Amino acid sequence: MDEFDFINKVKPSKTYHKQVVVGIGDDAAVYKPTESFNQVICVDTMVEDVHFLKHLSSPKEIGYKALAVNLSDLAAMGAVPLYYLVSIAIPTTWTESELIELYLGMDELAELYQVDLIGGDTVSTSAKLIITVTVIGEVEAHVKTTRNSAKDGDIVFVTGTIGDSSAGLSVLLEEIDQIDPTIENYLINRHKKPTARIEVGRIISQLERASLNDISDGLASELNELSEASEIGIIINEEDLPISEELLSLHDRFDIKKWALFGGEDFELVGTTSQDAWEKLKHNCLECGISITKIGYVTKKHDNVLLRNKNDQVIELKKSGYNHFKGK
Amino acid sequence: MDEFDFINKVKPSKTYHKQVVVGIGDDAAVYKPTESFNQVICVDTMVEDVHFLKHLSSPKEIGYKALAVNLSDLAAMGAVPLYYLVSIAIPTTWTESELIELYLGMDELAELYQVDLIGGDTVSTSAKLIITVTVIGEVEAHVKTTRNSAKDGDIVFVTGTIGDSSAGLSVLLEEIDQIDPTIENYLINRHKKPTARIEVGRIISQLERASLNDISDGLASELNELSEASEIGIIINEEDLPISEELLSLHDRFDIKKWALFGGEDFELVGTTSQDAWEKLKHNCLECGISITKIGYVTKKHDNVLLRNKNDQVIELKKSGYNHFKGK
Repeated sequence: MDEFDFINKVKPSKTYHKQVVVGIGDDAAVYKPTESFNQVICVDTMVEDVHFLKHLSSPKEIGYKALAVNLSDLAAMGAVPLYYLVSIAIPTTWTESELIELYLGMDELAELYQVDLIGGDTVSTSAKLIITVTVIGEVEAHVKTTRNSAKDGDIVFVTGTIGDSSAGLSVLLEEIDQIDPTIENYLINRHKKPTARIEVGRIISQLERASLNDISDGLASELNELSEASEIGIIINEEDLPISEELLSLHDRFDIKKWALFGGEDFELVGTTSQDAWEKLKHNCLECGISITKIGYVTKKHDNVLLRNKNDQVIELKKSGYNHFKGK
Repeated sequence: MDEFDFINKVKPSKTYHKQVVVGIGDDAAVYKPTESFNQVICVDTMVEDVHFLKHLSSPKEIGYKALAVNLSDLAAMGAVPLYYLVSIAIPTTWTESELIELYLGMDELAELYQVDLIGGDTVSTSAKLIITVTVIGEVEAHVKTTRNSAKDGDIVFVTGTIGDSSAGLSVLLEEIDQIDPTIENYLINRHKKPTARIEVGRIISQLERASLNDISDGLASELNELSEASEIGIIINEEDLPISEELLSLHDRFDIKKWALFGGEDFELVGTTSQDAWEKLKHNCLECGISITKIGYVTKKHDNVLLRNKNDQVIELKKSGYNHFKGK
């Protein structure tokens, strides 16, 4: 396989944004930024056998997710995604047609959000496939949805439902079985094809103030991050946690609370905003048909995340989320 | 090793650019672009045992080069580098102190060009270390030094000297020996610590028109790229090729012409511009103490790179450069 041939095969035939001055194929990509917008950029890497298993996901699904996890980071900054670059280290165990499928997976999601592939790198490796995606977006210069923006008295909210993705992973790994095929498919799909919450990120960006995180490492972990960065406490109610009907149907046989609190990769958004702004946010989400749920409050006490369980007991919620670095 | 602890250890203690709104540690980095400048972005990946060998380069040298090759891409666009992000897949064969040294190597170069580390990702891998660096810079909106900008009658120029890096690699791999230690050190240093030609890239960016490439895959390969992209021909003179005294001293025993034409990773710049602009460029480089050499002309004939050798014979120069994708 020749690098230049391959790049020509995965090179987009069109660009969504006319601000692209130089796309794929030169030393670097060039684009014109929008006036009075800040640039938002992030990079995420997925490693074969650490973040995905080739026998459990199709190349297309792997590509889709590699871009989705990055779009999710941009969503958490309230940004509009615009461009992406893909760097890929390829072992001989991957065929050219599998690699093209991988790019088609990204392409599918990129089309949905009108994100242009503007550059990248392809190198060979002796071992496992590693894909690194850099995503660039923009946000109005006044917007700030950083982790350190939470304040005492804020409402804590979460989008969509949580726990589905890690339950889906358990299905994939055959850790759980004898589940209704429809539910199985739903959970697996939530794990393999997460939705980056760009739209709700944009709605939140219009609030006067909000703190925001995407849920990559589990709700408990993200809440602890908000708590640490903002130097505040958080208390959430177990009974308010948004659980899908599908996940709920498994509660007799499995510990769904564990998935909801500590399961990673839901890529929903969790954040905080003032009481007044919450009313506005709830209203705007309702109008757009977006699910968002109040799950608790911000308290003054620094660096402490508490859970009020269904028996009205309050317990401390530690990170215990999934820490990629320790390996899986 | 914990991901968050490690990030805190490599997190910069200061930022060079006050335009950084959100640096390392949130979902994504945010910066304010300069008015009427375009954004320039590229990504390059280095794989252990493909692009570097751990027993032949120190972690610091590997880090330095990982950033340098990206800065070189920006130089070839005439851009000023501003920010970078590092994504790294870490096997257990690397210790935390080696990884910190790797970041210090990048830091050393970053300080030289005042480039801020604003984000990244750290993941684990079972195999070899893979480092992916994304660099962002800016260039005035009117500047265009793309590969397709060469025109019939242009002067072809190259910065610095060529062939040193691949000769240095041959020394490292013990393919050649019995060389004066001073010369050995010079060549190895040129291979391990290439200089990104940011300053001359900036000088070239001020010309009315120029085509430009950085020499990563060898002079012959880069000239062929310019020729293909611009649909022109190129003829260069062997006797005009800028060879360092150190490399020249080896010409009795080795084929230094091969290194100069096909050796990769010199990270000098090769380009073309009009006769008039060339005079200006030469003058400006002289004033700044930058070495730049005219090596030939652009001709009308499409897609043809020729070399006039020392016997006045004209031979076709094929890419034959180093194509990373085919492995080493």
